[in-house]
Amino acid sequence: SMADQSPAPIRCKAAVSRAKGAPLVIEDIVVDPPKAYEIRMKVICTSLCHTDITFWRGKLPPVFPRILGHEAYGVVESVGERVEGFAVGDTVVPTFLGQCDSCAGCASAGSNMCSALPFVVGPGMRRDGTTRFRDSQGEPLHDFLAVSSFSQYTVVDVNQVVKVDPAVPPKLACLLGCGAGTGVGAAWRLAKVQPGSSVVIFGLGAVGLSVAQGAKMCGAAKIIGVDLNPDKEELGKKFGVTDFVNPSKLGESPLSQVIIEMTGGGADYCFECIGVASVMTEAFRSAKQGNGKTVILGLEKDGKPISLPSIEFLFGKCVMGSLFGGIKPKTDIPILAKKCMSKELELEKLITHEVGLQEINTAFDLLLQGKSLRCIIWMDKLAA
Amino acid sequence: SMADQSPAPIRCKAAVSRAKGAPLVIEDIVVDPPKAYEIRMKVICTSLCHTDITFWRGKLPPVFPRILGHEAYGVVESVGERVEGFAVGDTVVPTFLGQCDSCAGCASAGSNMCSALPFVVGPGMRRDGTTRFRDSQGEPLHDFLAVSSFSQYTVVDVNQVVKVDPAVPPKLACLLGCGAGTGVGAAWRLAKVQPGSSVVIFGLGAVGLSVAQGAKMCGAAKIIGVDLNPDKEELGKKFGVTDFVNPSKLGESPLSQVIIEMTGGGADYCFECIGVASVMTEAFRSAKQGNGKTVILGLEKDGKPISLPSIEFLFGKCVMGSLFGGIKPKTDIPILAKKCMSKELELEKLITHEVGLQEINTAFDLLLQGKSLRCIIWMDKLAA
Repeated sequence: SMADQSPAPIRCKAAVSRAKGAPLVIEDIVVDPPKAYEIRMKVICTSLCHTDITFWRGKLPPVFPRILGHEAYGVVESVGERVEGFAVGDTVVPTFLGQCDSCAGCASAGSNMCSALPFVVGPGMRRDGTTRFRDSQGEPLHDFLAVSSFSQYTVVDVNQVVKVDPAVPPKLACLLGCGAGTGVGAAWRLAKVQPGSSVVIFGLGAVGLSVAQGAKMCGAAKIIGVDLNPDKEELGKKFGVTDFVNPSKLGESPLSQVIIEMTGGGADYCFECIGVASVMTEAFRSAKQGNGKTVILGLEKDGKPISLPSIEFLFGKCVMGSLFGGIKPKTDIPILAKKCMSKELELEKLITHEVGLQEINTAFDLLLQGKSLRCIIWMDKLAA
Repeated sequence: SMADQSPAPIRCKAAVSRAKGAPLVIEDIVVDPPKAYEIRMKVICTSLCHTDITFWRGKLPPVFPRILGHEAYGVVESVGERVEGFAVGDTVVPTFLGQCDSCAGCASAGSNMCSALPFVVGPGMRRDGTTRFRDSQGEPLHDFLAVSSFSQYTVVDVNQVVKVDPAVPPKLACLLGCGAGTGVGAAWRLAKVQPGSSVVIFGLGAVGLSVAQGAKMCGAAKIIGVDLNPDKEELGKKFGVTDFVNPSKLGESPLSQVIIEMTGGGADYCFECIGVASVMTEAFRSAKQGNGKTVILGLEKDGKPISLPSIEFLFGKCVMGSLFGGIKPKTDIPILAKKCMSKELELEKLITHEVGLQEINTAFDLLLQGKSLRCIIWMDKLAA
């Protein structure tokens, strides 16, 4: 009968956020079958991103209980009705940003904002607003960005999942789903860094170091890293950073003045990867007159507006931002995955830790304490 | 002898600014011969731009006595040593922005900031800092932007003068030297308005109306003009404006909300042509997510910084500015002059008044009272 062929609910383990800032709880949950245009996937590995922390802290409208996680890699377990182009066993990366390839946003060369299922931070699958997760008592568990990868199985929309070559190492493909894709994309797709150019990166976390890799891939001649942590000087070099500035060691000289001197008049590209309004202003000041571009990647920590000296716009400066570094997920993640395999992109150094699902709270602690860049969480094993 | 062949000083009339905000004085002055790399030109006509008013008011460091004026058209009278590519009798437009065609800025596709003789607002020819003007007592008169077109003769650097087809009407060529070139250029070269797109112009003065002409030339489908003056609705139509919004008639609705509704989600391009920080913010809010561009053309009246909601950058917005609308003077002014002749660009409607040199203070009054867009000042006749 039809019923026999249809996928059944799956019982599995997930790390559930029950209250803001509280340790995640490993629970037995139920994952519903995929509906039309949906795919259920087995999550092989996931990693922890600062955005998960932001929502876990409940700074944005708190939504609990919730299954967080949005950087992941897995295998298609079953497909819902009307799903084309995916089959059971396909290796995939889910994405918080969709790509339908038919709306005006997807059709535009300069935009990656799909309007078919627009990006929202609130919970709910984007076609019907419902969740596919229930806890052991049958109570619904909210999803996160319609990805929710802190579960051994999850359901994603066909617009929000990208097929990747199974030859790509799972943990590298996983990183492309958010932080690394954002950083590399910002240099490559958004700013379009030109060969021989000068680049400044404010903040050498995972996103900033990925910008360095993207800038190196694009042929930048000078890649200046800026960070208050002196350990980032050596670390940055591994990602392509050629020069390092520690703002705490400049004495009276404003940071932008130092950058302008180092670059002979201002940098071609400045990337703010911290999320502090005053650093955004300083990045803008550091960009060169004529066509210096400032890219805002950080989400301002306190929601402050950016203040920019208006006169500097008249000297041909530009400020830009984007979600996901301007990459179109389905178009660009497979390209970046290939570049990972050919070592044009070396993202493996971003992986500082690896744990099993049971140790997911350790991954939170490491990121909160600034001890990790990316911690891979393997979903099949409960402990490393 | 050599001395006989060399150009001699010329006595002529000029409108001299003797003190801030005081009426200009028509005086007999002496214009020195051109030095190496310089051209002396007879000014046929000039027009008055808000930037002249700004410096005449002495808001920026006051420099008097000075010969203002920087939108002009004329004929080469004599050339200094080492001048190539110009001959006596050539019809030319002087420009406040230079183009050497050999520096990094000129070589870059995305920049119009020549670094050979960088743009400065202070007085002095840009190679040696000196002036070519003296009054009847032999006292030096300062130049303005190394153009000083409120004189029957002026001296300009070979980098700051563009040869134009003598078939172009002088008063149209004159307008390309600043305001009209800036507005058309901002749509065409800086924002690169795409066919079928939506454009919003905040402020329908001479620059804003030129943006409308540029947007129309680029094939924009919807051109929304925003102005507090209801008379601008009819005027805008003559320049290609398709829709008009008077912010004083919106009741409780924020301007950006109205624009977002009119454009089905935000405009592709927003141009701020007024110079008010709060309008710049509202223009940014009015741009569409994905790749909406906001172009800052106005010089903020009180030097205030621009405050931009940082979160909106994450949805793929961009803010840009430039001097002279991003056009490269020697490359682009001849192209725009041709478009004026073919009526692809209809700038003549910008000319609301014409006067003789003796009536130059009338031109100031008309612009100060908001009664003129552009007033052409004919230099050969003292009265109209």
